[in-house]
Amino acid sequence: MPRSITAFSNPLVKQVRGLRDKKNRRRDGLFVAEGLRILTEAREAGFLPDTLFFTGGNPPHPLLDRLIAETEADGGEAIETNADILHKLSGKDNPQTVLGVYRALATDLARIDRNASDLWIVAQALRDPGNLGTILRTGDAVGAGGLILIDECVDPCSVEAVRASMGALFTQQIAAAPWDEFIGWLRAGEGELIGASLNAALDYQAPRYGKPAFILVGNEAQGLPLSYEAECDTLVKIPMRGKADSLNAAVATALMAYEVTNQWRG
Amino acid sequence: MPRSITAFSNPLVKQVRGLRDKKNRRRDGLFVAEGLRILTEAREAGFLPDTLFFTGGNPPHPLLDRLIAETEADGGEAIETNADILHKLSGKDNPQTVLGVYRALATDLARIDRNASDLWIVAQALRDPGNLGTILRTGDAVGAGGLILIDECVDPCSVEAVRASMGALFTQQIAAAPWDEFIGWLRAGEGELIGASLNAALDYQAPRYGKPAFILVGNEAQGLPLSYEAECDTLVKIPMRGKADSLNAAVATALMAYEVTNQWRG
Repeated sequence: MPRSITAFSNPLVKQVRGLRDKKNRRRDGLFVAEGLRILTEAREAGFLPDTLFFTGGNPPHPLLDRLIAETEADGGEAIETNADILHKLSGKDNPQTVLGVYRALATDLARIDRNASDLWIVAQALRDPGNLGTILRTGDAVGAGGLILIDECVDPCSVEAVRASMGALFTQQIAAAPWDEFIGWLRAGEGELIGASLNAALDYQAPRYGKPAFILVGNEAQGLPLSYEAECDTLVKIPMRGKADSLNAAVATALMAYEVTNQWRG
Repeated sequence: MPRSITAFSNPLVKQVRGLRDKKNRRRDGLFVAEGLRILTEAREAGFLPDTLFFTGGNPPHPLLDRLIAETEADGGEAIETNADILHKLSGKDNPQTVLGVYRALATDLARIDRNASDLWIVAQALRDPGNLGTILRTGDAVGAGGLILIDECVDPCSVEAVRASMGALFTQQIAAAPWDEFIGWLRAGEGELIGASLNAALDYQAPRYGKPAFILVGNEAQGLPLSYEAECDTLVKIPMRGKADSLNAAVATALMAYEVTNQWRG
């Protein structure tokens, strides 16, 4: 049976609220995801929360009932609370009615099975959590295997990244590695490294892309380092026809991912 | 000669800080843009700020010097200040060194010249300022004429939208109108209304798109109302191959805009 927490001063409330900070997520090995849709996506992908906060609906939602039951059966705790507490936990003006606290995801490169998909997304020094989450969501939509984060990227388990991923955080494999380690891993197997760059001469629709394809996109402000571009098997440019000299990183990633997969289905 | 403001209590500082709120932007008919890159983009598009805040660099940046001179020549005021004030004005931890206060943009549909471009983007009930700004940036990149906002959308002059647009707010025409007014305007001239919808059967790469093309995307959570979809000349679906059942609105818009313009250059 779920216990009830309605006091702001409750230590668990304070701890979970603290998970908005990366240093606390690291210390506790936990992160937060919100909303029945994302938590259900997580459950379907095999992830149940350690702790599930919910406000009782009337009538209760069958998906919520199932989440509560499975969380408790899995050894987790379900806690009934109120909208004020959920607002405090989520920091949103209109908080979701469900919030889950999950164990941190493993992100070592060795766990990635490149044979699980023909397409992988690789992002370097990504700074914006919304971009990271949106890239995960796009990866899920195109059937990518996952996202490999190179060098210092924003935390994929930040509240904003989890939100923007719309649950894809749980369905996409995620790894983080320095560039040299990634290249060592990549070159130990099959794979075409395809960089998107403003410096490239080749149009992104010109090459025929091989499998598995690794789409590489760089930092929002700087793009890819030149030495990383030099390592790419194929370096392409998305055409710009207006005054803008670059695209949003998540948009560029999506254009690349759809070009590659559109070719394969064509 | 620029005057100097370094006091938080200065009424102008308070007013400009207040422009983060939509109601104050409406009341004053003003909005804020930040950063030398975006302000230079604005100047090149013919927009100079009413008030320009800057921190003196050493050596001063020639683009900044030019902005100051042109702002003053245009009857605006240039104000030297410090990083603390700019932090307060922008709300960012690492504020840009330049911030401009601009007069609100006119957004009546009658100002749009559809012959100015073969491509227009139409967004309905868009809620996220980052999405709106990213859509403007993409529109600029593909050479679209502008963005038409249907029904109740987030303010394109919000701080987040301006930032995400990377200056495209000033290079794209922007209009806002209720659906019925938009349809009346659209049907009074040439134009193919192309809706992106999860309900469509037709793949987005199947049709040959006509000019001018009006790409219509719906609200982030709800998509387009069915009656709006029924009004479309062409209703298409971007394929999903994974578990995700939808794409980020700015990503979907970019995929549509690039598909249409890729066909035309092909």
